Amino acid sequence: MALTLEDLAQRFGGDIVGDANVRVGGLAPLDQANAQQLAFLANPKYLSQVETTRAGAVLIAPADLAKLGSREGRNFIVTPNPYAYFARVAQLFIDLAAPKAPAGVHPSAIVDPLAQVAASAVIGPHVVIEAGAVIGERVRLDANVVVGRGTRIEEDAHLYPNVTVYYGCKIGPRAIVHSGAVIGSDGFGFAPDFVGEGDARTGTWVKIPQVGGVTIGPDVEIGASTTIDRGAMADTVIEECVKIDNQVQIGHNCRVGAYTVIAGCAGIAGSTTIGRHCMIGGAVGIAGHVTLADHVIVTAKSGVSKSLLKPGMYTSAFPAVSHLEWNKSAALVRHLDKMRERIKALEATVAERASGGE
Amino acid sequence: MALTLEDLAQRFGGDIVGDANVRVGGLAPLDQANAQQLAFLANPKYLSQVETTRAGAVLIAPADLAKLGSREGRNFIVTPNPYAYFARVAQLFIDLAAPKAPAGVHPSAIVDPLAQVAASAVIGPHVVIEAGAVIGERVRLDANVVVGRGTRIEEDAHLYPNVTVYYGCKIGPRAIVHSGAVIGSDGFGFAPDFVGEGDARTGTWVKIPQVGGVTIGPDVEIGASTTIDRGAMADTVIEECVKIDNQVQIGHNCRVGAYTVIAGCAGIAGSTTIGRHCMIGGAVGIAGHVTLADHVIVTAKSGVSKSLLKPGMYTSAFPAVSHLEWNKSAALVRHLDKMRERIKALEATVAERASGGE
Amino acid sequence: MALTLEDLAQRFGGDIVGDANVRVGGLAPLDQANAQQLAFLANPKYLSQVETTRAGAVLIAPADLAKLGSREGRNFIVTPNPYAYFARVAQLFIDLAAPKAPAGVHPSAIVDPLAQVAASAVIGPHVVIEAGAVIGERVRLDANVVVGRGTRIEEDAHLYPNVTVYYGCKIGPRAIVHSGAVIGSDGFGFAPDFVGEGDARTGTWVKIPQVGGVTIGPDVEIGASTTIDRGAMADTVIEECVKIDNQVQIGHNCRVGAYTVIAGCAGIAGSTTIGRHCMIGGAVGIAGHVTLADHVIVTAKSGVSKSLLKPGMYTSAFPAVSHLEWNKSAALVRHLDKMRERIKALEATVAERASGGE
Repeated sequence: MALTLEDLAQRFGGDIVGDANVRVGGLAPLDQANAQQLAFLANPKYLSQVETTRAGAVLIAPADLAKLGSREGRNFIVTPNPYAYFARVAQLFIDLAAPKAPAGVHPSAIVDPLAQVAASAVIGPHVVIEAGAVIGERVRLDANVVVGRGTRIEEDAHLYPNVTVYYGCKIGPRAIVHSGAVIGSDGFGFAPDFVGEGDARTGTWVKIPQVGGVTIGPDVEIGASTTIDRGAMADTVIEECVKIDNQVQIGHNCRVGAYTVIAGCAGIAGSTTIGRHCMIGGAVGIAGHVTLADHVIVTAKSGVSKSLLKPGMYTSAFPAVSHLEWNKSAALVRHLDKMRERIKALEATVAERASGGE
Repeated sequence: MALTLEDLAQRFGGDIVGDANVRVGGLAPLDQANAQQLAFLANPKYLSQVETTRAGAVLIAPADLAKLGSREGRNFIVTPNPYAYFARVAQLFIDLAAPKAPAGVHPSAIVDPLAQVAASAVIGPHVVIEAGAVIGERVRLDANVVVGRGTRIEEDAHLYPNVTVYYGCKIGPRAIVHSGAVIGSDGFGFAPDFVGEGDARTGTWVKIPQVGGVTIGPDVEIGASTTIDRGAMADTVIEECVKIDNQVQIGHNCRVGAYTVIAGCAGIAGSTTIGRHCMIGGAVGIAGHVTLADHVIVTAKSGVSKSLLKPGMYTSAFPAVSHLEWNKSAALVRHLDKMRERIKALEATVAERASGGE
Repeated sequence: MALTLEDLAQRFGGDIVGDANVRVGGLAPLDQANAQQLAFLANPKYLSQVETTRAGAVLIAPADLAKLGSREGRNFIVTPNPYAYFARVAQLFIDLAAPKAPAGVHPSAIVDPLAQVAASAVIGPHVVIEAGAVIGERVRLDANVVVGRGTRIEEDAHLYPNVTVYYGCKIGPRAIVHSGAVIGSDGFGFAPDFVGEGDARTGTWVKIPQVGGVTIGPDVEIGASTTIDRGAMADTVIEECVKIDNQVQIGHNCRVGAYTVIAGCAGIAGSTTIGRHCMIGGAVGIAGHVTLADHVIVTAKSGVSKSLLKPGMYTSAFPAVSHLEWNKSAALVRHLDKMRERIKALEATVAERASGGE
């Protein structure tokens, strides 16, 4: 399964410097690679390793190649982004090596006669596909996946075991959904129907029907145990190439803009719009009905309660320090208004004395 | 499937003003509704739309109706809570339109001969029901649901795909449990059995058996991927009409009072009691062994470490601001005690000078 | 199923004081136990209950036994850790009472012919075991569990319903994994391949293949809906006897040291190393690429952004207070640098006056 540099350049671009017919069959770090392996230089501080590596070839950026003393006897694929190139080649070798699951429907799967499944799709054991669902070309549904009524899973999407997609949703081409994720559960909406106050309060919560769906764009990845609720009326929308980590919660009628990345354990309340190219840190919480501009970065563990309409980095998290130190100082946050008043009083006294006494 | 205003008033109450025989077949906003649709006025600021709407009828509160110029040629159902009325009617139309799953047990489901399943229940594909479990009238268990030994699922409850309920639990009538939720997993309890300190510490954690169950009351809704642990000895209890969002964690032996609402990503440690009619915001954390009074509100992202014995709103969260601004100021929290001492010293100096110098 | 004190001492150690032939068939608190039950004294403040209990025998520490007035007619098992002893005996009675699931593979399970399943294993309904997987002696895989290609589940491990373990992972002996947990999902890694800034930014995220696995040590317990990602190259590692609560997220290439305990809703970003015997509180967030020493304690809701290289307790969380009080004071955190400057200015003024004016 070794490929020539020429083969790689034809697939992924880049200029070859050296012998285009050199064959590589895998990837390795510069200091560990052998003559049958491809290495890459992503960080210029390892440039000296390029001079001593035994790798069959090296992925390198033009600026770094220019700094090299001698290229004698070495082979390169020159590309502006060696790290992304590495990722693509690594995936290619995995795809070439992986046992291909044969197309078709496992006999233990339950597919409604009114569902439509492409012949090239791979439907695993115990999968359930309800009426009206459409499963595209080369889709992989792993064991125990459930696809609800009328839901579309588009070409080349891959749903790992135990994923649930409710009715009336759409998963875009090449999307990846990891195990335990739930797409299309009911949004959290209840109308209060109570009378009286305090202990005299009686009545109930009335469920607001959630009849929108979820639309997931192309090339989205959704982490394990992440949940994305269906909209109340219109759809919840995740645009193309959004990458969402594990244990993330996205409320009904949110829209997440293309290329945005959301790290693990973040939670986004309903009807919030997040722009394109945003980065939402781990365990960030974002209130409902707010808007984040394109290119907003929220650092880990911060809370967003209002719209952030300008690009930039936002924070509200404290880093842990010694418990004793924290308890001595942080408790005073509750009394900051009193500290401010004491400063104001001091300023007044000192000013008065200055004007009156001299 | 159109219904007259008379039909609706008979089901849901309200007084009809206008033609009781007008038929409506769906709902729409005031400014979009047509003559076959019902609209509603929940917010008085849209009152003028009632004068121009083409809706067949409008749900309206008595006070708002009184403010209307002319009712000429218009039809109303007058009700104190048009929003809750809307929600109930919307659910009715959905129920009338939805394809009814036929009662019975899907042939791929595995039902233990010692389990008891009502004839009107709908048991989906690949469901597993263990010995001694009892499934009530009209219960819906969707694909891949697992119900453990001796667990009761009471009438009209609906468990979405991939829900797991462990043994010895009870789910009340009309409860809704969304996909990925886990009810009755072991509480987190271990007895330390270690000797020695620091690097010399040896021994192990001994699991405390968790032999209580979980009792979920009537009309409870539980979100996707929410987890509720079984009690150590007595049950973990979720009282009637509690509404729990996605990704919430409730520890062993908690009790959550009736009508309380818990937003997504909240976590409640073991043996904590939450009162009735509380509102727990998203990503709130509540320590173990504390008590929250009835009518307590905790705002999103706050942490509760002690009992809150009075009704009211509680907070400990900071909203995100520009990263630079935050770093300049928030880092000083660690030194608040020193700032307080400097203020105290200044006060002493100024006071001494005042008494000594003038 | 009653056992003599002698039987218990032979299994679990301890010295018998009194009649070794007394039989007990269960456990109960001191004030509720009858003559056929075993009670335990874990907290010395209940010592007086030992004098009045009707329990058949009492688990007690040597120091507490010494304080007792009379042992006349009473029976004891004396052990340094009565609570841990209680937990072990409780588990024993449960194991004796529980209906043993018969060994074997349920006919609805799908086991690849190239997988290897021990004859003593209990494989539940709708379980899926892929090629090359190895299931050890007495392993229990409950309903709907999915075990990927080449994954090993070692002896006496118990995976509850709806657990997913991806390919190429290892679960150690006696491990317990609760429902909804996902082991071995892809780590969250993407190479940015963009050009241009702001609105002119074009390109995409390139997925970094995640080809490491997850190694879970012996006696680990993993809570419901917890997710542990596979490593990018090397494995993510959870060492022996680590106890992890529900809804925890552990990123790729983390290592969690032996005997460490992680409470619910905690999140640990990738490539972080946590020492042995640590305690990570509920909803704690830990950044990627940091190191926590052995014996580090992080209190609930705190955030860790840097390495903590000394044992001890660390904190960054605020407890909730009245919303009004919080809003009045906490908002000032954003202006702490200005408060500090005002104090500095006051100090300068006062000092100048002291030296110049008197």
